[in-house]
Amino acid sequence: MQRIEVIPLRGLPEVEKGDDLVRLILDAMGRAGTEAEGGDVFVVKQKVVSKAEGRVVALQDVQPSRKARALAKEQGKDPRLVELILQESVRVVRAAHGVIITETKHGFVCANSGIDQSNVGRGFAALLPVDSDLSARRLRRGLEKGTGVSLAVVVTDTFGRPWRRGQTDVAIGCSGIAPLLPYAGRKDRYGYELRVTEPAIVDEIAGAAELATGKLTGIPASIVRGVEYERSEVGAKALIMPKGRDLFR
Amino acid sequence: MQRIEVIPLRGLPEVEKGDDLVRLILDAMGRAGTEAEGGDVFVVKQKVVSKAEGRVVALQDVQPSRKARALAKEQGKDPRLVELILQESVRVVRAAHGVIITETKHGFVCANSGIDQSNVGRGFAALLPVDSDLSARRLRRGLEKGTGVSLAVVVTDTFGRPWRRGQTDVAIGCSGIAPLLPYAGRKDRYGYELRVTEPAIVDEIAGAAELATGKLTGIPASIVRGVEYERSEVGAKALIMPKGRDLFR
Repeated sequence: MQRIEVIPLRGLPEVEKGDDLVRLILDAMGRAGTEAEGGDVFVVKQKVVSKAEGRVVALQDVQPSRKARALAKEQGKDPRLVELILQESVRVVRAAHGVIITETKHGFVCANSGIDQSNVGRGFAALLPVDSDLSARRLRRGLEKGTGVSLAVVVTDTFGRPWRRGQTDVAIGCSGIAPLLPYAGRKDRYGYELRVTEPAIVDEIAGAAELATGKLTGIPASIVRGVEYERSEVGAKALIMPKGRDLFR
Repeated sequence: MQRIEVIPLRGLPEVEKGDDLVRLILDAMGRAGTEAEGGDVFVVKQKVVSKAEGRVVALQDVQPSRKARALAKEQGKDPRLVELILQESVRVVRAAHGVIITETKHGFVCANSGIDQSNVGRGFAALLPVDSDLSARRLRRGLEKGTGVSLAVVVTDTFGRPWRRGQTDVAIGCSGIAPLLPYAGRKDRYGYELRVTEPAIVDEIAGAAELATGKLTGIPASIVRGVEYERSEVGAKALIMPKGRDLFR
């Protein structure tokens, strides 16, 4: 193992629907004099990916269903936002104390189907990318072409945790990197065999990136350098707990 | 925000009961020529803290209760290990598929009360420190005295997550750093007020450190440099979700 570095990518402009995020990132790197190195992991926040992909919705265009209106009333939320939460989900996991935890169409379990209203403008809400692994793959290919080196991309969002206060950034999409580092079958120096150890390194990378970029800095991307990982295209969907192993459905 | 660096601290010897962990870390830094800087966050793995504090138990000395034997049989585990898991917990949250999720005496919800058998020698199990915030505080004071600069310490363990495969390192103790970075009341550039955003930065720091140290490298500590944080002594216990807000009891 070696030193890890997290380099925030400053100077990206406000991202709009249809923008070429690869071009914006490469231009910002060029202006900052930041050069990519082989193996770098580019971490890009969901919000700018969603914006570039046109996944921002004006709440005034949303017609809440009866179900959404009832749930909104119960949880003290905007019925139009709840309508979007329901549309983006396959089931409501819990709803209490003004919090709606859903399973998204991707299979992620998170608050509000990952929809939020920060950094998008008043009266708007940003939905998660339709296929965040595909978003990551497109970004990786573009960034590899633009930089000439082999890279990985992690698309991140901010999720809460059931038994711990606060949130951490986690991976909702990845490309060029295996999300888990399997230790199964490897032995410690006493000969004890590790069986279930598989660090979710893309989630740890997402959290590390968040430390360098924060929420209100307007820095939507960073480079995490020095991580040892396997190249893979299984994507962040490989992190979703299979139903049969889910103890908290 | 600025660059973050994670510097693994190599060259620590095998830690034994009664060892002065502060001295071992300072000596290893001296040999490696690593100097601490003000604001550095020292991340130390639970395993070496537990070893130094004598929290390693020989399974042959454990007498499993009837309850432990029944649960062990049900989940296909060693009854002596299950006895320890029960002794260290206040309740079993879930037990299924060979996994026992408990709430520890500290209030952490994790597999096996945080007890594990890797890197401690065959026939032994390491328990979590009795008071991991106190462990962090002692380390911080010793490291501050030894280095002459103001520091923070995070004690980490590896926890699973209910709906995501794999594990990430999280904070089970901290000192000199506020575990959460509260954004409540702050506004984005559109004037939208953040209400529930409070990144659990000590957990993100724990994960970042894990990327540089791994599981089988014999590197039990690292320095995370460049994180913006508030100084505080509330400890990692402030991360425990209050019962009234826990949707998944």
